[in-house]
Formats: sequence, C-alpha cells, structure tokens
Amino acid sequence: MSDSSRYSVLFEPVKIGAVTAPNRFYQVPHCNGMGHVRPRGEAANRGMKAAGGWGVVATQETEIHPTSDVSPFAENRLWDAADIPALRLMTDAVHEHGSLAAIELVHNGNHAQNLLSRAPILAPSDMSVDYPIPKQARAMDKTDIRNLRRWHREAALRARDAGFDIIYVYAGHNMTIAQHFMLPHMNQRTDEYGGSLENRVRLTRELLEETHEAVGDTCGVAFRFAVDEMLGADGMQAQEEGRAVVEMLAELPDLWDVNVCEWANDSVTTRFQPEDGYQNEYISFVKSLTTKPVVGVGRLGNPDLMVSMIGKGIVDMIGAARPSIADPFLPNKIREGRIEDIRECIGCNICVSADSLAVSIRCTQNPTQGEEWRRGWHPEVIAPKASDAEALVVGAGPAGLECAMQLARRGYEVTLAEAGVEPGGRVARESRLPGLGAWARVVDYRMHDLSQRANARLFMESALDAEQVGELGIPHVFLATGAHWRADGIGRSTLRRPPVLDGSVPVFTPDDLMAGRLPEAGPVLIYDDDHGYMAGVLAEQLAQAGLEVIFATPESIVSHFTTLTLEQHRVQARLIELGVDIRCNHVLRGVQSGQAHLACSYSDRVSPVECAAAVLVTERRRETALYDALKDSGLATLELIGDAAMPALIADAVYSGHMAARNFERDPAEVDADWFRREIPSLTVEGGRS
Amino acid sequence: MSDSSRYSVLFEPVKIGAVTAPNRFYQVPHCNGMGHVRPRGEAANRGMKAAGGWGVVATQETEIHPTSDVSPFAENRLWDAADIPALRLMTDAVHEHGSLAAIELVHNGNHAQNLLSRAPILAPSDMSVDYPIPKQARAMDKTDIRNLRRWHREAALRARDAGFDIIYVYAGHNMTIAQHFMLPHMNQRTDEYGGSLENRVRLTRELLEETHEAVGDTCGVAFRFAVDEMLGADGMQAQEEGRAVVEMLAELPDLWDVNVCEWANDSVTTRFQPEDGYQNEYISFVKSLTTKPVVGVGRLGNPDLMVSMIGKGIVDMIGAARPSIADPFLPNKIREGRIEDIRECIGCNICVSADSLAVSIRCTQNPTQGEEWRRGWHPEVIAPKASDAEALVVGAGPAGLECAMQLARRGYEVTLAEAGVEPGGRVARESRLPGLGAWARVVDYRMHDLSQRANARLFMESALDAEQVGELGIPHVFLATGAHWRADGIGRSTLRRPPVLDGSVPVFTPDDLMAGRLPEAGPVLIYDDDHGYMAGVLAEQLAQAGLEVIFATPESIVSHFTTLTLEQHRVQARLIELGVDIRCNHVLRGVQSGQAHLACSYSDRVSPVECAAAVLVTERRRETALYDALKDSGLATLELIGDAAMPALIADAVYSGHMAARNFERDPAEVDADWFRREIPSLTVEGGRS
Repeated sequence: MSDSSRYSVLFEPVKIGAVTAPNRFYQVPHCNGMGHVRPRGEAANRGMKAAGGWGVVATQETEIHPTSDVSPFAENRLWDAADIPALRLMTDAVHEHGSLAAIELVHNGNHAQNLLSRAPILAPSDMSVDYPIPKQARAMDKTDIRNLRRWHREAALRARDAGFDIIYVYAGHNMTIAQHFMLPHMNQRTDEYGGSLENRVRLTRELLEETHEAVGDTCGVAFRFAVDEMLGADGMQAQEEGRAVVEMLAELPDLWDVNVCEWANDSVTTRFQPEDGYQNEYISFVKSLTTKPVVGVGRLGNPDLMVSMIGKGIVDMIGAARPSIADPFLPNKIREGRIEDIRECIGCNICVSADSLAVSIRCTQNPTQGEEWRRGWHPEVIAPKASDAEALVVGAGPAGLECAMQLARRGYEVTLAEAGVEPGGRVARESRLPGLGAWARVVDYRMHDLSQRANARLFMESALDAEQVGELGIPHVFLATGAHWRADGIGRSTLRRPPVLDGSVPVFTPDDLMAGRLPEAGPVLIYDDDHGYMAGVLAEQLAQAGLEVIFATPESIVSHFTTLTLEQHRVQARLIELGVDIRCNHVLRGVQSGQAHLACSYSDRVSPVECAAAVLVTERRRETALYDALKDSGLATLELIGDAAMPALIADAVYSGHMAARNFERDPAEVDADWFRREIPSLTVEGGRS
Repeated sequence: MSDSSRYSVLFEPVKIGAVTAPNRFYQVPHCNGMGHVRPRGEAANRGMKAAGGWGVVATQETEIHPTSDVSPFAENRLWDAADIPALRLMTDAVHEHGSLAAIELVHNGNHAQNLLSRAPILAPSDMSVDYPIPKQARAMDKTDIRNLRRWHREAALRARDAGFDIIYVYAGHNMTIAQHFMLPHMNQRTDEYGGSLENRVRLTRELLEETHEAVGDTCGVAFRFAVDEMLGADGMQAQEEGRAVVEMLAELPDLWDVNVCEWANDSVTTRFQPEDGYQNEYISFVKSLTTKPVVGVGRLGNPDLMVSMIGKGIVDMIGAARPSIADPFLPNKIREGRIEDIRECIGCNICVSADSLAVSIRCTQNPTQGEEWRRGWHPEVIAPKASDAEALVVGAGPAGLECAMQLARRGYEVTLAEAGVEPGGRVARESRLPGLGAWARVVDYRMHDLSQRANARLFMESALDAEQVGELGIPHVFLATGAHWRADGIGRSTLRRPPVLDGSVPVFTPDDLMAGRLPEAGPVLIYDDDHGYMAGVLAEQLAQAGLEVIFATPESIVSHFTTLTLEQHRVQARLIELGVDIRCNHVLRGVQSGQAHLACSYSDRVSPVECAAAVLVTERRRETALYDALKDSGLATLELIGDAAMPALIADAVYSGHMAARNFERDPAEVDADWFRREIPSLTVEGGRS
C-alpha cells in the first residue's frame, strides 16, 4: 500500500458545462469492436470502467446518419430513435456507478464508404474516398451542409434522450468531416466554408454552437480536436493552425479533448514510442488559451505522471483509452493506494486489432476485456475455489503465469514449475527484442501478484518429466509448455512444396536468435511466413548489429499483421532506413549451395539470392511431449493451455490461461454453453420506417 | 417471344433423395453478405429467387459451431436453436413459391479464425490459419473428430427443424474441414483419418452417412465437392484423386454439387475466362460414376447451353450463383420464352466484393439485388407512374439507361438524349478494353428493353445545352452526364503535394486511351491512384501493343480493389508476364525533364524513372456544367445521377439511375426514410445459455 493522499488531486470533481465529473479520470472515446453490433457487450464493457472508478466513460465514435456508415466496422450508431434503447443500456450501466456517460457523435465524411447504406459519400470538395477503392465522395452543397447540421443537432437530442451527460463534436483522427473542412488539402471550397481558417472552422463552430443550444442546458459539450497531424509543414501543426483553432473556439466547448492524429500517432505502440505522456509537447499549449477543462492522452497509466501533468497545468483531466482497457480499475486502485496492483498497458495495440477486424476488443494484459457480457468476466473478481483441490501449472510463460495467478486468487493451492532460469517464457524472451521492452509488464504484473500469495509457489529451473509430475501427487495439472519455432521452413506458403535446405548455410530460428545464437556473417536471408512482428523485429535486430539482411515474404508488405496494430508503415519504413533488402511477394523454394531460391508469388519465376545464413520465421511446433506422456496416467485434470494448446498471440495465451483457471471445477455443460453466447439480430425490431 | 418448348427439359422435376425439386434450376449456395447478420434481408433475397422460378434455393455457408466462426463475415449461422427462427424466415420465403430450400452446413477448419468466439482453431494437422496472421490451428484429436461429427449431425437436425429440404455436406473452395482432411498437404495424420485416400475421405464419408441417418428420411443430402484444385500436380486433380473420391462416395449423397476450387477459379470473372460453362471439362466425368443427380456451375445463364449440358449428360441440374444474382427470374423467363428479357451476368464479381466487405450483396446488372427487404425492391416489378408527367434523361451511360428504362417501365413518357454516337457511356468505352467485352451486356439489356417501349425515345448525337433543355419543355430532368478522368495527377495520394508536370512528356488519361489516343512510344509510366481495374487493364493494353510500361502505385499491390473481385492475383501475374515494370509503394511527385519522380511511400526517397509518356489514372471530375446551368431554371425536377452525382463503380451508377426512377414522384419523407431501414440486434433474445 502506498500513501494515497499524494494522488488526491486526481479525485477532485470537475465541472463540464451543465454536468460535473466525480473525478479527473476520463475514458476518452475509443473503439471496442462491439458498438451497435453488440450493444449488450458494449454496455457491460463501458459499465465496467465506471465500476473501476473512471469519472467519465465515453462511447466509441457514433454514426449520426446513413451518409456516415462505416460498416462493416462495429462502431456505435444513432441514426434514429431505434438506436436509443441499445445506448440506454450503456448509459444506465455507467450511471449505476455514479460516473458520467459521454457520446462521441461523428460524421465520417469520405472516411465512410457507406457500404451498407449505399448513401452518397460527402466531403468538403470532390475527392476520392479514404480507402484504395475506385469511389469518390462529392463536394457538399449548401443544402448538404444545412442537413449535416440538422442531423448532428437531432443526434445530440437523441443522445440526451438516451441518457448521455456529455455530447461530443469530433474533429480528429483524419476521420471526421468537421476536421476535413479544416484541412486545406481537403477543402478547396470558395464559399464561406473554405479559404481562410475562419471559414474552414465555420462548420465546427456551427456544430459546437448548435449542440450547445440543443443540449447545453443539461449536458456538457465536449470537443475532440487533433491539434497536430504530425506531418510537419505538410499538415496542421500545433503551433500554427492548431493553435489558431483553439484560440478561435476557446470558450465554445465545455471541455477540450485534445490529441494528435492520425490514429497511428495518437495510439502509437511502445515499440515505436516507449515514453508515456508523449503527446504533452503537442497539447500543453491548449490550457493557456481556454478556461474550460482540458483532457489529454498519451498512454497515461502512471499516477505520478498524472499528478505532475495536473500540477504543471498541462491538463485538467487524465484521458485514457488503452490504460483503461488494460486496467478498468486503475482509478480505484490509485485511490486505494494499490499502485502495484495496476495492470499496466504494454502498448501492443492488440486492442486496436480487434476493432480493425470488427470483432470484440481483447487485450494482452487484461483477458477479461470484451468478455464482460459474453462470459460475465470481471477483471478483479473471480469465483472462489470450489474445493480444496491442489493444482500444478507447468511453464511460467504468459499462459502459465495467468493460470497460476487466477487459480491462486480463487484460493487453490498452486504449484508453478518453470524449466528455465527466469519466468515469462516467450514474453521474457521477446521483450528483449528491439522496442518490445514494455511487454515485460505481462510478466512483472503476474510475478508481483503471485509473490503476494501464500497459496502459490513458484519453482524455477524445474523441468518436470511425467514421472516427476506423478511423484508430486497433484491431481490437477495444467501444461503451459509453450512452442518452438520450426527450422524446416514449412509454413502456410510452403505446405505443398517444402523448401529444400541443403545445409550449405546455417539455418536459424527466432528461438536461436532470442537465445543469443546469431548468424556470424551476412547476407542473412530472413523468410517471413508468420506475418506478425517477429520477422520484422529480427530483421531490425540483425541490421542494427551490422549484418546485411534480405527480408523475403510471400505477402506484399512486411509484417502484414502489424497493419492491424497501426504499426505496419513504421515497421517497413524502419527496415528500409536500415538498408534491409525487402523482397515481397516471394515464396521460399530452398536454400541451396549458398543461395536462397525465391519464387515470385505471382509468376512462379525463381530468383537466386546469395546468402550466408537463413532465419526461418514460419510456424511453431507445440511442446506436447509431457502431455503425451501424461495423458493416460489417470490425472483428474490434464489440460494444455497457451501456445502448447494452439500457438497464437501472447494475448491468446493469457486468455487461455485465464479461461482454464475460471473453468476449473465448473460444470462442463456450463463451460460448453459459454462458447455459444452471442448477440443476434432482432426479427421484429428494426431501424427506419418506425 | 421464342418457342419455349425447346427448353422444356429444364422444367422437369428431379428427385433428390426424400424430396423432389420442381425443375432443374438450382441456385447453389453462394454468399450474399447478409446471413445471420441480416436475416430478414437474407430471407427476402432468397425468396425472390424462388419467386423467379429456381427449383432449389440454397443458403450461403452456414457455420455449425463456435469453432467455425468466420466473423466478421456475414455468412449463415446455426450454432444452436437460437438461430432457427432467422433461418425459418428464409425457408418460409422459399416454400411460398413451391421451391426447395437447401442449407450448406460448414465447418471451416483453419479457414475460420474464430475471431469473435475465440474458440480453438481446428485442422487435420497442426498448421497456420488460412490468413496472414500469426496464429495456428491445432490438429484434431479423436475426441475433436467425434465432436465435429456430433456438431454436424445436430446442425442437420436443427436445419430440418428450420424447414430445410436439402442439407449439405461441404468439401470445397479450400474452405472446409471435410476437404482439408482430403488434401495430403493439409493432412499429415498417421491414424485412420490420414494417409491413404480412403483414410483422408473417412471424415467426409462419416458426415454423409450420419447426415443421411439423421435427416435422410425427410430431406435430401447434398454433397458439394471440388473435384479439381486447378493447381496441376500440386493439388487434387479431377482425373486423379478427384475421380477416386467420386468413385468411393458415388451413391452416398442424394445429390452431387460439383465444381473446381479455389473460389477465384470457381467464380472466375469474364475478364479472365470469357466462356460460359468453363467447368464442364472438369466435372463431366461425375455423372458416369453415380446414379444420383449432378449439379454443375460455370456462369450458366444461356438456356441453349443448359439444354445441351442436360442432353450431353454433363449435369442433371443447372447450378447457378451469379446468373441467379443478375436475374432472379431467369427460370421463369426461359419458361415463358422471354429469352431476350434475361439480364445476363457480366462476370464482374461485384457480387463477391460485397461479401468480402461483409455488407449486403449488390450486382452491376441487377440494382435490386440485396434491396429486396431493405427497400422492398423487386427486380421485375416497379410502381406504375403516379401522373402523366414527362421526363428527360440526359446521357445514355449506365445510370441514364437504367433511369430511362425504369421510368418507361413505370409508364412515363421518357426522352433519353445522348451526346455521343453510341449508347452506353463509360460501359461502352470500357467494354472495348482487354477482357471486358462481356460488360457491354449492361448496355445491350437496357437498349433492347427500351427499344420495345413506345413511351421511350432515344436520341443519339444530341448534346444538349441549358437552352435546348428549356426548349424541350420537359419539366422533369435527370442528368447522367458522367465524369472524365483528370489529367493533373491529383488523387488520394497527391492531395497534399500535387505532382509537378512540366510538359516534357505527353500526359494521357484513361479517356484518351479509350478514345484511341495512345502514346506513340515508351517507356510509358502508368500511375494508379484509383486502384480499380482501370490502370491494370490499360497497362495490359499498352504492353500488348508493344510499348514498354512502368506501372507505379502508392499501394503495395496492383489494382488493389480487384482483390475483392477475386482477380488481383491474375491481374498482377498478367502484368508480370507481359514484362510490365511494377513499382508498388510509390507516390508520383512529378514528371519533369522526361523523368517520372516516384517517392517511396515508406521512406519518401525519390527515384527518377525515364519515361516518354505518362498515363494518369487518379480521379474523375464530375460533368456538372449542364446541371449548374439549369439549377436555377425552375425545372420541377433536376437531379444528377450516376458518375455525375458521384464517381464510383458501374454498379453504383446503375443503382443511382434505378433509385432515381423508383423515387420519382414519391413522397420525399418516404424517400428519406428508406435510407434508415436496417436490421438491429435484439436486446432480449440471445444465442447460448437458453
């Protein structure tokens, strides 16, 4: 327990127009992949943040009209009154804990493709849509602008009817029409909505004024504004037009929620921006220009940083998306002085990937994220033990640590045996790769928690064979024995034609490199058939070590999956900067006589490339030897978890360990039924034609 | 009217196990982007096919369990009894017209990512998932196989309860676990489910037997099987193991639904396969090995081809996906001898793109597709005219033709004025590009229809200015004046920095090339910032004309949008084959002193490339001069439609023209309300935990 009084400033109420937030913790609008598609999930997810002490809890962006239809993405929607009941679930869930509910109204302009509604796509000027498809948006005429203002005003009234306390005007992330009007490259209008900055800001001013006029008597009006596009002179800059916009609109909103754009800059990963509070240098000017409260973000999970930001007058409220995902109970833990109990965000952006895939949010650190309604999981509460049974967990990687920790929380006697010299498994190893240091928090949080529990024992350097497991006499065994990278080059692209490896050059796997066994000389071929971060990070490591690197992959971009975590551009740019020779669209046919044979994915034409070593990043093999040896031994419980059950993301491993602990000694029929819980469309209620 | 007796064989009933199809028209399972996400849309869409005379109408693939969760894609779902009411809507809609309803049960194996359910991913052997993400499926053990068989059997029983007459076992498209077990590169098992073909077919045999046992007394059991992977000796071949599988299972199913895989081969576009019936050479052997009826596909829309295929004993039933999308009333039109009224599929795969984007299906030829429930549109029925008003349509491109045709169908007097020497606008021009000839059907169908109508008059070479429009005295005017390609290189990638064009080399647009104005000498730079088919097709044309071509684009692949129409691999392969120099990930900075300056999208590094001409495929400008001149002239109706309203796909232009005709003289409040109609999740009903 720390002295919590040093943080008391964080628990002061803040007036936001007609409403008052109970404290300074502000969950800014963020996507969670549920929205209007999974409204009960949405309500439970947001309600949990309120339960955890966030004074303000916001929706994700909320479409106000069929001309702003971002299907198939699962954002919120408030096209008409038919959407109110779903949103009411969310405001009720937030109000239950005394917090304020905020809604981020949005018109997405040309960032909406209107794929489902097939409505006209709108923009300040004629231009392409914000996707690589052959469609264009059309310039809004005066009627369109009047309509847009009416739609926004009506949506604000509906939002108030749904119980929201704070209603947004949104000009950020390069995704909203209010911002599009502000940006000169998107606004070539010659009327009073184009030209001078004052003209380009006119629409935003009108939206703010009209929202205030409509709902300002009962609701706070927030303005989310990206002060800097992070493009230097090619875009809006905080000290140029960004500042001028704040000056112009200073007292119009009841609250300023400020950040940088685009999304990849606002939510940058720790791999490319390790520092918390990284937006402060851009946003700190805002408070000097307005008397209204200011919210800022930048992976703000550290209470000392929070206090210092308030003290320095950088912000009035601590905005957070990712820290509130990793730990919905962050405010309560700070209030209670339980700083060591905070589950710190590792900045991996797995949360973003779920939204990009239009499915419910998940989190590497917090496996209950997105499962509040579906599985009824609470991040801080787990059912007490059902018996005095003892459990053995083998392997202290992410799955084993989580499983052991949750079993211990339930009150079971837990023995955790790790073969290696350090806990953490793949996370410990991967966190030593360039840029991934923050990932060690997955281990740190769990090791700290376990260290506090008398009913959990961790044994290091304790490789167990079946006989030793038997000798322990513990009847319930969870095997988190992990996986290792295969060295034969087999993966999704080479299943039909395994590559020929003649041994002419040494072959390495990620496991070799992470264990310090590195190629001695280049050129090194890295073949990526995995498409996560691994091959890209290894290329970076080897190139930084001075080796010549050739990066080949059957995909058309480097580290394809990192598109979903908003990192792909930075990954490929960094490899280019380091001089890595990138060969996309190529399948490995073999490494023979000192040459890699790469076949074009399109033409099948083979190019030989000289190499002195090859690093194969293709697939992993599950470590199941202990499972195989034990499976007929009559143990009461024997369960594979984590990568040993199915190699996937660290988030999946943690989830797997968590679920095993939750389901231990539960009725198998209930366990099975959980998989089926889902939200389904109504056959009687519909939107429109009411 | 043709003599319909020559087609009478197509209207013979066919026995399928316990049920009998009323005729030989069989809408095979195909995706429509509605499924379990939009069940009322699904029911109306399938019901319309039954109304149009299809004797069998099938669902799209239908997930049987949470371990086969293809979210976010909108397929069908039958995880448990909670899904029955939605599917019952569909079977009722099909039965209403005397047709049989079929359901394609599926377990997708490692083609399912289980993104929403987060369930284990299953495969015959350990392997990566079928997407470029760092996740793997795990090999099924014997318990998994027993479970899978139970899930399939239980799903078949639920399907029967939902009213289905035909129930599928599905082993095709490289997307299903039954097929995965058959393929040696995916099945490395050493038990009785791996090794010999008989072992690899075991699971399919069990599924067929068990489905028959469960529901065969009342339902037909269909087997969808891909006889050839189109990979030569690298995959299953029709004359090798494909044939052997048919021999082994010959009499087990009640119906064989056979095709080739993968999907891009099954549903190949006319651009890459102009011939109808292109699968016959692969599937024709099947009938010789079984007494059960055989269904085949291959863009079968021509009734003479259908009759010949029946006559030659190639198939018993005419399978169709795309022809049934372009014309749900194809069977009825054949029965009635109205061959000229058939709306022929153009093979563009815009239907597929919608499913790939997880939104409701659309079709270039049939703008009512996917709108049966949402807008209540019927492909053959439109409201009669509301008055004796006359209408003028300016421009006989896809939007103008459709608008004029539908207005004429409603009974209005319609004048259609085209400035050029031929009807069709962009479609006429684009259909002369390499491979796009079938697209002319968009024009042919409408021109034929208009030519039959006394109340429609078409004037060619009739460019109209505002004064001439006024002189015509027609109060209701629709402007389908189209768009032209801009020549300044401005597009989505160059908005912030327009390229510098110093005039040192001639610059062309797609309009120039389509008008026959071609570069005289290479190298020709083609810059693609449009990402549809256009730039790729032009590169093909110029390379075939013997010019050296450099293809540059800011995207990482050529013709990005064609991924959604299943063509991208073929497009890029063809350009490579033709020797085109492809420079992906490059933005055009300028063409100066005979050099194109291309900046790397990642590093911003500029490479100069010698060129003698440049073709800029970036954006289009709307032709609105006539609209601008008329807008204050007091016309009762003045409406921009098609590309003149918003440049997009041909499908969008047809849709726009169709909607304008539907909405003409409708209550504006009703017109507005239509945009809002949508299916929304239930807040009371849910799946699981029933």
